[in-house]
Amino acid sequence: MTKTSLGADGQRVKDDLKALALFTAGGGGCDRTLFSSAYNESRSWVADRMRDAGLEVRRDAAGNLIGTLEGEDPTGPALMMGSHTDTVRGGGHFDGVVGVLGAIETVRLIRESGQKPRHTIQVVDFLGEEANDHGLTCLGSRSMTGELTAADLDRPNTEGVTLGEQCARAGLNPSGMIGGGWLTREKASAYLELHIEQGPLLELREVEIGVVTAIAGIERLVARFLGQADHAGTMPMLDRRDALAAAAETVLAVRQLGCDAQGAGVATTSRVTALPGSPNVVPSAARLEAEMRSTDPVWLDTARSRLAQEVADKATALGVGVELDWVHDNQAQPLDDSLQTAIIGAAESLGRSWIPIPSGATHDAVHVARRIPAAMIFVPSVDGRSHCPEEMTKLSDITTGIDVLAQTVLALDCR
Amino acid sequence: MTKTSLGADGQRVKDDLKALALFTAGGGGCDRTLFSSAYNESRSWVADRMRDAGLEVRRDAAGNLIGTLEGEDPTGPALMMGSHTDTVRGGGHFDGVVGVLGAIETVRLIRESGQKPRHTIQVVDFLGEEANDHGLTCLGSRSMTGELTAADLDRPNTEGVTLGEQCARAGLNPSGMIGGGWLTREKASAYLELHIEQGPLLELREVEIGVVTAIAGIERLVARFLGQADHAGTMPMLDRRDALAAAAETVLAVRQLGCDAQGAGVATTSRVTALPGSPNVVPSAARLEAEMRSTDPVWLDTARSRLAQEVADKATALGVGVELDWVHDNQAQPLDDSLQTAIIGAAESLGRSWIPIPSGATHDAVHVARRIPAAMIFVPSVDGRSHCPEEMTKLSDITTGIDVLAQTVLALDCR
Repeated sequence: MTKTSLGADGQRVKDDLKALALFTAGGGGCDRTLFSSAYNESRSWVADRMRDAGLEVRRDAAGNLIGTLEGEDPTGPALMMGSHTDTVRGGGHFDGVVGVLGAIETVRLIRESGQKPRHTIQVVDFLGEEANDHGLTCLGSRSMTGELTAADLDRPNTEGVTLGEQCARAGLNPSGMIGGGWLTREKASAYLELHIEQGPLLELREVEIGVVTAIAGIERLVARFLGQADHAGTMPMLDRRDALAAAAETVLAVRQLGCDAQGAGVATTSRVTALPGSPNVVPSAARLEAEMRSTDPVWLDTARSRLAQEVADKATALGVGVELDWVHDNQAQPLDDSLQTAIIGAAESLGRSWIPIPSGATHDAVHVARRIPAAMIFVPSVDGRSHCPEEMTKLSDITTGIDVLAQTVLALDCR
Repeated sequence: MTKTSLGADGQRVKDDLKALALFTAGGGGCDRTLFSSAYNESRSWVADRMRDAGLEVRRDAAGNLIGTLEGEDPTGPALMMGSHTDTVRGGGHFDGVVGVLGAIETVRLIRESGQKPRHTIQVVDFLGEEANDHGLTCLGSRSMTGELTAADLDRPNTEGVTLGEQCARAGLNPSGMIGGGWLTREKASAYLELHIEQGPLLELREVEIGVVTAIAGIERLVARFLGQADHAGTMPMLDRRDALAAAAETVLAVRQLGCDAQGAGVATTSRVTALPGSPNVVPSAARLEAEMRSTDPVWLDTARSRLAQEVADKATALGVGVELDWVHDNQAQPLDDSLQTAIIGAAESLGRSWIPIPSGATHDAVHVARRIPAAMIFVPSVDGRSHCPEEMTKLSDITTGIDVLAQTVLALDCR
């Protein structure tokens, strides 16, 4: 296939976005969590759109939807594009979705150009990228790249049901999901993921395209505080062992850690629960979930040590015991230099403005990048909002992103 | 009836405590919350024990169990004793229970003495003294004293079911529970409540009996924080509006308020929840429940104003909106001087040590005291623990308390 310029069809992309948004459990934005019926139903729709675009569709053991357009050299490695279509609870219409629909639109453009690409082209809708009820992100891409472990499948949700049991209930074969993973350099030579930025930087700098340099590593924390239940009206303040007070100190320590990083990392507490929760009882136990992210592994290590020390000190001062359970969710992952160069070339050939940008959010590309060269293209998020109903990316920014994606695929196909 | 000394039967009291403890929803201590089947079943057992002791038993409109032993002067006002047999979730075996079983034991002792009291004697097991799922304490005593309002019955639980609906489901007649209340000085001239201290003071001072001077007033707070949901990996720290961070600041401000009171009051946060609760989303909303208690109404007023200002300042600094909803649960209530003198006289006649003591916990006596003279007798709590499975009062301390209660009743009957 020769290198020409392809232009995304804005109306077609808009119609796809609207149609996919109808699959939701309700609320203002989109609610399409892993294993929900809204998500299950939406993926049949996505498979149909893949077929309409001329792709042959299959599901692998992990429920990843894979659409394939055979190239002139069907035995050589494919060029792979993809993202995900699940959302967080009360999420938006664009996170992940733009990458899957943009990849399908790219295939349509390639086919409409009348030329057959040399490489086989693949579009992947990865299963369950968002953190699920078992605390695991990127279920599908972890499986495809051989990173999913039996221990991952043993993770319980709050009701004690394991991830493996949930997968089996959803018709997947848990034992087939772990093991080596089928993605190799022989199967695909490059992975490109178009995605919304989910932060404010591109908008603030008035730039159309972000070429992602690296994806942040994530350390997740579950802290359990053990104090003592006493009558809230009679136990003197200084004799208390208030587990919720220790948890509150930790919420603020987590935040301060992020603030002190001055851009080198972020830190967030998402959940605190206290027991027994009776209005007249001093909380005897509390549980806290937090995370820290940075593209700098040294910052993450230092922050983790500092937080552990601070939390231990605060809890001890309150007479409260604490256990910290860290889960190393993702290592910081640089993306492929040569693919970044191809994206920059494509953007410049189309006259689009771009900057290099780190990704604070994690993506399926993290896992894919450990197996094959991978890169990401960001488009602006209005007000930097994401993971909420207000999440918004302008249609013109989406089609610009698709144009750059398609142009990059063409360039790679000519290499 | 002439004034003599009566001695509680330790084995009988111990057997009663053990038998009542078997009615529980499970866990290490006792779990017998309002409307639970464990509580419903336990009250039939209590009614049977009242009958065994020679009391005639009835239930009023609010489900208070009332046992009556007619005196020589059946038309005159009764001498009333009582407490409650419900518990908090995961509570202990003694809170409330000691007062009800102690009152029944007192009636047994009076009958066994072979003398008929001049006054009618009443034993009341008040319905639902502990804070229920609708945030209301002392349901039965509020109703009996005419303090229960239609607005109280409209209070929803977290599932949106109102207290009135719950009462109706439990076979009560909600409209009969509100109104004037039947308790007047013509019906009863005195109320005595034996209770565990639920704090460490009697044990620390090595004293057997606490003569309660006043019961703390309670201000309950529900604070709602409104921030903004953003991606926890991409939104810069200083651009966040983190509702949970504002709630954590409030937990610590509540605690500091109590610590600064230096014994004049206590302040406790029992519960914090944050939405959406996804590990990678900055919390957009949080809810907090707290309370403050003091026997000093001026301290309560000042503390309330100071907290409101501090919470508003902290939330504003974080870009978070806050709404504070205060419920004035109980006014501080002094207890009857003349009855306190009678209790002191009884303790001294039995050679028991005593001190005057304020009550940080609220009790049915608060409501009763607004209608008729009321007083309370405290016995020591081991380590001051209460509202937990470890709640403990020694049998010898309980029988000492019953002896003082019975001796006080005898003294009042002779007046």
